[in-house]
Amino acid sequence: MSLEQILKKISKINLPYFTKDTSELKYFLNYNGSNGYLFITNSNPSFIFFTDARYYEEYSNILGKEYVFLLENGVYPVLKEKINTFNFQSIYIDYRLFTYKEYLDLKKNIKPIIIRDVKDNIWKIRKHKSKEELELIKKAVNITEETMIYLLSILKEGVSEKEIAIEAEYYIKIKGGELSFKPIVLFGPRTSYPHGESNFDTKLKNKSVVLIDIGAKYKNYCADMTRTVFFGNELDEDFKKFYNILLDIQKKAIEKIENTLKGCDLDNFVRDLLKDFGLEKFFVHSLGHGVGIDVHEPPLLSYKRKDDIISKNMVFTIEPGIYIPSKYGIRIEDMIYIDDKFKTEILTTFPKELLKIW
Amino acid sequence: MSLEQILKKISKINLPYFTKDTSELKYFLNYNGSNGYLFITNSNPSFIFFTDARYYEEYSNILGKEYVFLLENGVYPVLKEKINTFNFQSIYIDYRLFTYKEYLDLKKNIKPIIIRDVKDNIWKIRKHKSKEELELIKKAVNITEETMIYLLSILKEGVSEKEIAIEAEYYIKIKGGELSFKPIVLFGPRTSYPHGESNFDTKLKNKSVVLIDIGAKYKNYCADMTRTVFFGNELDEDFKKFYNILLDIQKKAIEKIENTLKGCDLDNFVRDLLKDFGLEKFFVHSLGHGVGIDVHEPPLLSYKRKDDIISKNMVFTIEPGIYIPSKYGIRIEDMIYIDDKFKTEILTTFPKELLKIW
Repeated sequence: MSLEQILKKISKINLPYFTKDTSELKYFLNYNGSNGYLFITNSNPSFIFFTDARYYEEYSNILGKEYVFLLENGVYPVLKEKINTFNFQSIYIDYRLFTYKEYLDLKKNIKPIIIRDVKDNIWKIRKHKSKEELELIKKAVNITEETMIYLLSILKEGVSEKEIAIEAEYYIKIKGGELSFKPIVLFGPRTSYPHGESNFDTKLKNKSVVLIDIGAKYKNYCADMTRTVFFGNELDEDFKKFYNILLDIQKKAIEKIENTLKGCDLDNFVRDLLKDFGLEKFFVHSLGHGVGIDVHEPPLLSYKRKDDIISKNMVFTIEPGIYIPSKYGIRIEDMIYIDDKFKTEILTTFPKELLKIW
Repeated sequence: MSLEQILKKISKINLPYFTKDTSELKYFLNYNGSNGYLFITNSNPSFIFFTDARYYEEYSNILGKEYVFLLENGVYPVLKEKINTFNFQSIYIDYRLFTYKEYLDLKKNIKPIIIRDVKDNIWKIRKHKSKEELELIKKAVNITEETMIYLLSILKEGVSEKEIAIEAEYYIKIKGGELSFKPIVLFGPRTSYPHGESNFDTKLKNKSVVLIDIGAKYKNYCADMTRTVFFGNELDEDFKKFYNILLDIQKKAIEKIENTLKGCDLDNFVRDLLKDFGLEKFFVHSLGHGVGIDVHEPPLLSYKRKDDIISKNMVFTIEPGIYIPSKYGIRIEDMIYIDDKFKTEILTTFPKELLKIW
């Protein structure tokens, strides 16, 4: 990310804003350290950034010494000195991003600190992905799909959920990625836990449903995908029926995006389709979520969220699921991009027709 | 952990205390979920616990239904109803553990919430490890040492830092552990970065110093160890000299523990020994830190921390290091336990005499 790109992003923020959120520091500055403070001034220079000795040299070279200051003898003496030269009426911080202690310390040192719900101003911008961000997301999707192929290739009787989950981590990292989230690998009736945790005790048996939900992160940008497959010498006809119902609904949901403005409408559309089969009670989570630097970002596609709009340059998942207790769960999750002209692109290219592995 | 053990731990807290800190929930309740709220009542029942549908069944079975409540329709309606029945003068929360938003929400719902610096009251207890905690830490040390042996066995010319770091993660997890922290593997002059991040570009060459800092976590309890070895066909005599100076000082520091009460005194003792060789300026971090559910816990052994006392049943690291820019860094880190009678036990049994690998 060039300084020009950074300044362009920062110019979109229309209030003096102070943050230490690591995702926001990645977003605005491409900063990967664990400790940093950004003040967007709405003045000149348009931002100043503070970090400690571990990162100061690197980032003062990347961003320019006029923008970067070294934290010495703790955080507050330097913040105080530099920020207070600006003489603002008010500097905003978000009330979800600072602990009460941090708020007290800031207030003591920086006079015009005001704590409010301001993070939504940032999300308004972050929700829309640039071409550069989209490229990184596509690369993350690519690593994720290669990992899925690898995992499906090593399924065998007797292997445990946890072993496959560990292989997922290993493969993603060897390919140059990081984890978007801890891989979920579930076998048999345990697939009916939407947030189940992989364990060593559950071994793969003939005629088992296998659910794999994984995501690689590449240069800070996340991917997220789920496939549910059948492992066994003979397909369970009941499972096949449910799988194909869900697959059909997942495809219809994706087709519907172009004519839908609200996430809640799309979520309700899917619930209505499931209702025709009496399956709506088994769909226990939301239809999808935005994906970017965070693996769960706005918009949320849920009937509970009336204000989340689907709009251009957004990246989000479509992941309907049905979870039938003590039988199995099925989830099919793709990532979607909405382009400038509101056309849908399915970023996840991995096949989703029912797969039987033996 | 039996309910009896839980009640015993909780009985040591002498104020009505409310927490959602995941480490504290692990410590008091052996709770492993990502979302939970504990209220230590100092009354009867002595605690109540709140969690969501993902964990409710499991933990209401473990702890008993009289102690566990299901969060329905958000967090606050249930918290409000149950906690307000107690009719307290004051309920304490720690100002580092809650965001400003969470504080506002709690204050609105639970009348006597008071936000203060109260976490130190918890640390006073957590610092002293029980026999059961020590056993889990020893198991974590064990997995960590097995991993160290494995990593040293796969060092070869051309392998990258990052590949060895990924192997460390894989091995720890296959052995049933989790990561205490992201493994640090550094080669050559990069060992002089105390917090360097492993990369794919740095390949192992003949006559390189190799620094490996890893830690497994077992059933929530952490380990932490560092070894610095020489990889090559011919030992660098200069490195050997520095290594043996540091090793001698590390051993002396461990011997000194039994007669030292303050962490800062032990840290200053090491700095004085380094001064005799003109090396004190290369020791750029503190001498050690407590280890338990968190990999960095009180006490901190640092000349800057005048009040951190070394006392019985504590587990902490002794890890002096010297980092000579553009040459190499050396760190030797063991874990130490102080028993009931103030006797020192070195938990890390892996040899620390200079190792040359080729």
